Amino acid sequence: MNEAAAILAGDRRALARGLTLVESGGARGAELLDALCPRTGRARRIGVTGPPGAGKSTLVAALVRSLRPSGKLVGVVAVDPTSPFSGGALLGDRHRMSEEAKDAGVFVRSLASRGAVGGLSRAAQDSMDLLDAAGFDVVIVETVGVGQTELDVAAAADTVVVVLSPESGDAVQAMKAGLLEISDVLCVNKADREGADALVAALESALDLRAEAPWRPPVVSTKALEGAGPLLDALARHEEWLGAEERLALRRRAAAAARIRALFGLLLAERFLRRAEPILGREAQEVADRRRTAFRAAERAVEETLR
Amino acid sequence: MNEAAAILAGDRRALARGLTLVESGGARGAELLDALCPRTGRARRIGVTGPPGAGKSTLVAALVRSLRPSGKLVGVVAVDPTSPFSGGALLGDRHRMSEEAKDAGVFVRSLASRGAVGGLSRAAQDSMDLLDAAGFDVVIVETVGVGQTELDVAAAADTVVVVLSPESGDAVQAMKAGLLEISDVLCVNKADREGADALVAALESALDLRAEAPWRPPVVSTKALEGAGPLLDALARHEEWLGAEERLALRRRAAAAARIRALFGLLLAERFLRRAEPILGREAQEVADRRRTAFRAAERAVEETLR
Repeated sequence: MNEAAAILAGDRRALARGLTLVESGGARGAELLDALCPRTGRARRIGVTGPPGAGKSTLVAALVRSLRPSGKLVGVVAVDPTSPFSGGALLGDRHRMSEEAKDAGVFVRSLASRGAVGGLSRAAQDSMDLLDAAGFDVVIVETVGVGQTELDVAAAADTVVVVLSPESGDAVQAMKAGLLEISDVLCVNKADREGADALVAALESALDLRAEAPWRPPVVSTKALEGAGPLLDALARHEEWLGAEERLALRRRAAAAARIRALFGLLLAERFLRRAEPILGREAQEVADRRRTAFRAAERAVEETLR
Repeated sequence: MNEAAAILAGDRRALARGLTLVESGGARGAELLDALCPRTGRARRIGVTGPPGAGKSTLVAALVRSLRPSGKLVGVVAVDPTSPFSGGALLGDRHRMSEEAKDAGVFVRSLASRGAVGGLSRAAQDSMDLLDAAGFDVVIVETVGVGQTELDVAAAADTVVVVLSPESGDAVQAMKAGLLEISDVLCVNKADREGADALVAALESALDLRAEAPWRPPVVSTKALEGAGPLLDALARHEEWLGAEERLALRRRAAAAARIRALFGLLLAERFLRRAEPILGREAQEVADRRRTAFRAAERAVEETLR
């Protein structure tokens, strides 16, 4: 039985090997995805993002626990658990998460975020495709919501949950960082901490100020000990909304367009890089010698490469 | 007097206008940089990065205070102070920093990190060039060290200071995230907190394990109330080391090469995007319909665009 067939048949070790292939970004990973492509598109994809320390991992673990009793298979792609910034807390959560992972209906995969440009985003989305094809009903991607790449990964999901906690900064700051824009559900986590009510109120006010949008993100409150109940309700409402008027199809088409566009830029650069290499080397010296700016050097390199 | 001349003459309002131009990434900003390019290269560039909450901004403020008595002009480019992740702490620090900014020999500029891909990195580096040309002796760029783009911005400096605090995660995690690799100086901040000695020891052990490198990053300890003294010594040592054997020139050439390469990719994609637009639109539908993967769609789009 080949790898794709084994993955479709529910072989978890084949799935793990497949994820490794896909993450490496090579030709064999691309071929595996070719084979599995017709079987993707079934899973509901949920992106969970927010500042370090907002309690994302604990919340994701709670979400997984809430989804399992219905018999749903749940896959999790966790981006950057090795980051020093999420620190010991995340490692602790990962350990807690691994409790969930003893359940055969749950599969947790961690991705390191450091690597080639474009690598993280591609690896995360390809991993979600693989879990989708492997038959997981819900695929959750959890990213630390700092950095453009990391936010973009979460934003590619069907539903984006932005998790904030009373300590993690106010609504105005979240708005400035573009978090409100990408959110479908706003989750005030650690809602038993001081300042939670004020954060909820500030988020509602920020939403009031926005132009009328077809979907207004609900603001839900969660507490570590009480689980993901309120979040689950909001997710169900957004799923229902997405189901109507072909919204899900439109959204996935937009996500596909963004994904292709990013890959297009990378492949294009790769294509010309060999030819450009000596030109870029010469131009680097010109810039180091202050004969022209980096921008003009890049312009010249493009002209000369395409000549 | 034109803008470039005004900036060179020390006109701070012209500098502020110039930074706005440069950050917008347009043609006028590029022309301003053309005019100032021959006057860059004098400033010592220091990148300060590390996890949120490590106390980077307070440390940068202390560093500025330590540098000023010698009469040095100090410019600071702070990336993403509006991030919800650095939260109120950073705003507080920015306020503290503005105490420094009342001093005419100090100029602090904040950049938002959200924007076009490539925008942040370009804006930050161009801003540093402008401050350099404007006569600042030391230009510090402070970035939250989460996310590839943010780390790359810091890594483009002459000297990279990685700031950690006892709460911000252990040495092994820093190593995994690539922070040790980019560091020239490791700074254990909040050294009066519990766990500081253990963190210093762990960092030294991690450095012991690395292959013999020409420069071993010193590990210094700083405390909020005592200022940046120990860091200043380490910076002086690294500056001396860079000064020998053309190391600074080599490093700047490598930084220029990385910078041009990133811009080359962006300009190349821009160049072909108009032609590619209808192809990308069609391919997005193919991917949404699961007829091929995003990677194959991008490959096709490249082939067809270049045909």
